Amino acid sequence: MGSLAPYQRKHKVTVVGSGNWGCAIAKIVAENAASNSDLFEEKVEMWVFEENVEIPKDSPHYDPANSGPQPLTQIINRAHENVKYLPGVKLPANLHANPSLEDAVKDSTILVFNLPHQFIVKTCESIKGKILPYARGISCIKGVDVHEHGVNLFSETIGRTLGIYCGALSGANIANEVAREKWSETTVAYDPPHLDSKAPSPSGSQVNLVEFEHKDVSGNLSNVKLQALPTEFPPVDHGVLKSLFHRPYFHVRVVSDVAGVSISGALKNIVALAAGFVVGMGWGDNAKAAVMRVGLMEMVKFGDKFFGATIDQRTFTDESAGVADLITSSSAGRNFRCAKLSVERNQSIEQIEKDELNGQSLQGTLTAYEVNSFLKNQGQEDDFPLFTAVYRILKGTMQVSELPSYIER
Amino acid sequence: MGSLAPYQRKHKVTVVGSGNWGCAIAKIVAENAASNSDLFEEKVEMWVFEENVEIPKDSPHYDPANSGPQPLTQIINRAHENVKYLPGVKLPANLHANPSLEDAVKDSTILVFNLPHQFIVKTCESIKGKILPYARGISCIKGVDVHEHGVNLFSETIGRTLGIYCGALSGANIANEVAREKWSETTVAYDPPHLDSKAPSPSGSQVNLVEFEHKDVSGNLSNVKLQALPTEFPPVDHGVLKSLFHRPYFHVRVVSDVAGVSISGALKNIVALAAGFVVGMGWGDNAKAAVMRVGLMEMVKFGDKFFGATIDQRTFTDESAGVADLITSSSAGRNFRCAKLSVERNQSIEQIEKDELNGQSLQGTLTAYEVNSFLKNQGQEDDFPLFTAVYRILKGTMQVSELPSYIER
Repeated sequence: MGSLAPYQRKHKVTVVGSGNWGCAIAKIVAENAASNSDLFEEKVEMWVFEENVEIPKDSPHYDPANSGPQPLTQIINRAHENVKYLPGVKLPANLHANPSLEDAVKDSTILVFNLPHQFIVKTCESIKGKILPYARGISCIKGVDVHEHGVNLFSETIGRTLGIYCGALSGANIANEVAREKWSETTVAYDPPHLDSKAPSPSGSQVNLVEFEHKDVSGNLSNVKLQALPTEFPPVDHGVLKSLFHRPYFHVRVVSDVAGVSISGALKNIVALAAGFVVGMGWGDNAKAAVMRVGLMEMVKFGDKFFGATIDQRTFTDESAGVADLITSSSAGRNFRCAKLSVERNQSIEQIEKDELNGQSLQGTLTAYEVNSFLKNQGQEDDFPLFTAVYRILKGTMQVSELPSYIER
Repeated sequence: MGSLAPYQRKHKVTVVGSGNWGCAIAKIVAENAASNSDLFEEKVEMWVFEENVEIPKDSPHYDPANSGPQPLTQIINRAHENVKYLPGVKLPANLHANPSLEDAVKDSTILVFNLPHQFIVKTCESIKGKILPYARGISCIKGVDVHEHGVNLFSETIGRTLGIYCGALSGANIANEVAREKWSETTVAYDPPHLDSKAPSPSGSQVNLVEFEHKDVSGNLSNVKLQALPTEFPPVDHGVLKSLFHRPYFHVRVVSDVAGVSISGALKNIVALAAGFVVGMGWGDNAKAAVMRVGLMEMVKFGDKFFGATIDQRTFTDESAGVADLITSSSAGRNFRCAKLSVERNQSIEQIEKDELNGQSLQGTLTAYEVNSFLKNQGQEDDFPLFTAVYRILKGTMQVSELPSYIER
């Protein structure tokens, strides 16, 4: 895999974020950096939001002589385990936990973003101008930011804030299963303007600034200046990204449709809520399959109607980030589980969220509200009856029992 | 629904078969016949393979004074319940159980076939020439007959044997859930040569025989003579079929792709086996979603490659008979369950079948063998790695642990 041409320099890779999913991805990236020494520097940095952590008594890393709170980065670098967010999973020795964000991203050509979406802007702003101007990014943050007038992709927010190109990774990936090397698939989406694959500039100059008009997924035009990767590095192309993320237990397909992958990751949570509602009613597997089918069709329609030329409909039906993630999310995801419980217990989903999620919050309900306000603004509520029904059920203005006849229209 | 034009005659409908799924469909058809009196005769016939049945003691229909074995048809017509195959479900009073096949199908314009596939040919041959020559059929029999050189659709077997046109009904429909009016969806596929929608022939003749060349799904040409429906009847079109099958709890989409609907109903069982294998390994929901995604893509590819012009790929990705049935079958279906158990218990699937299925047999294993012999004959095993892996796992020449790397190629 990767390029056959010899390059003078290798990619330095940094993972920004170190939660459950952050560590699972960092583990993969570090394993691949070690085994693809032609492409990547062996040492992979992982930025860890520093906190003092007590190692639990049942952990093999517990030391009675040193049982007080210790900085999480020190524990990770000594024990090669994130005892707080991914206990029981051995992290590669070449993965270095770094409490300094600025130090972690310095000199890295590939930045992998994997942190809760509410921290994206602040995190990116704090490293603006402190990264390599020709770095490339991959966002592992699920979903999109939908507002009344359009959709923002997290990858675009990252790219715009940092002045770099950023792709996305999304798929049917429950973090704990991936971390335990249970086989799964994912989708990496990457489609930069054609800079990196260009022939070396005749001058050999490392600064190769290209200004181009960028149309975002909502159709807004902006001027973006992207700096080409120096030719000393292997180009960051689909092959290199596959080398960075693909493992025997984590199969990667690389596509170009960043918007489709991201939108799919958001919309499937609305469908998972609907699946939870009908299963909570005791309607069984036929009904669940029916809302999933209708939901998949509304996902395709949403993509086609609002982002027709920008995205590829097959992302929804063919890719891990589409239909497979929809299937996983509607079986084991927290949106599905909470929606099911809310019907079974006849309680609001906010109540269930409070009782069941340990302070974490549901992505699907937020997305359902955001997507509804967008659809309403477009005068399109009626064309997306399942999305609209989920919103109304959440609002309490529709009963789950009304769902079948409502989506029949 | 249905046509606005007034017609002198109504359709008489007969359901051929009265098992679990046969009774669930007969219930729907009889309910719709009663509520669409402009289109259908109220009384619906159901052919029942007569047997003597003892009513179980815990049944509300048990009568201590009359507890010996009684003919099943008499029980159904008296108690409006098939106490043997669909206990606990009330059948409509206008559904008439008939032990005589010949009498049940006589004068019927619409024949709904719903019986185990091994009885199709014999059953059809016994009523050949004894039905209305202009009758139309709908096959509710899941799957297809795959052999080394091609595929036979059950609907085509029925149509050819009887000299009539026959469509198909298939979807994410677990019979017991449908019978209990838990909401689900289905797909009806119907695409006869354009006879029935013609304007009335000027002569008003009831015999309007049209001979045409018919190309079956395997590309074989044959001459077929179809008799047009007399113009006294409402044309059997998509609207009339929707009136016959659609219920508030059973949502119908009518399409034209009979072959796609039928092939989908067969291939999804191979995928369900694969899903059962990986879940049996303890690999979890990501892995299950991954095989389902890969399986869906192989279904689409199978359709495209071997029946390109004949079928519509969207049947697999968009319809209840496609993706939704795949989802249901890979969650609750018996192929999934038996495959899962065979891995968990480290026993052959034949052993599990014997222990768990009460003498019934798995459709998926048969289909996996048949599809493999077809693929082998076409030199295409390698292009369908998931289908091939399932066959090899069943044969014992591949381990489930080899599946991910095998389908990666």
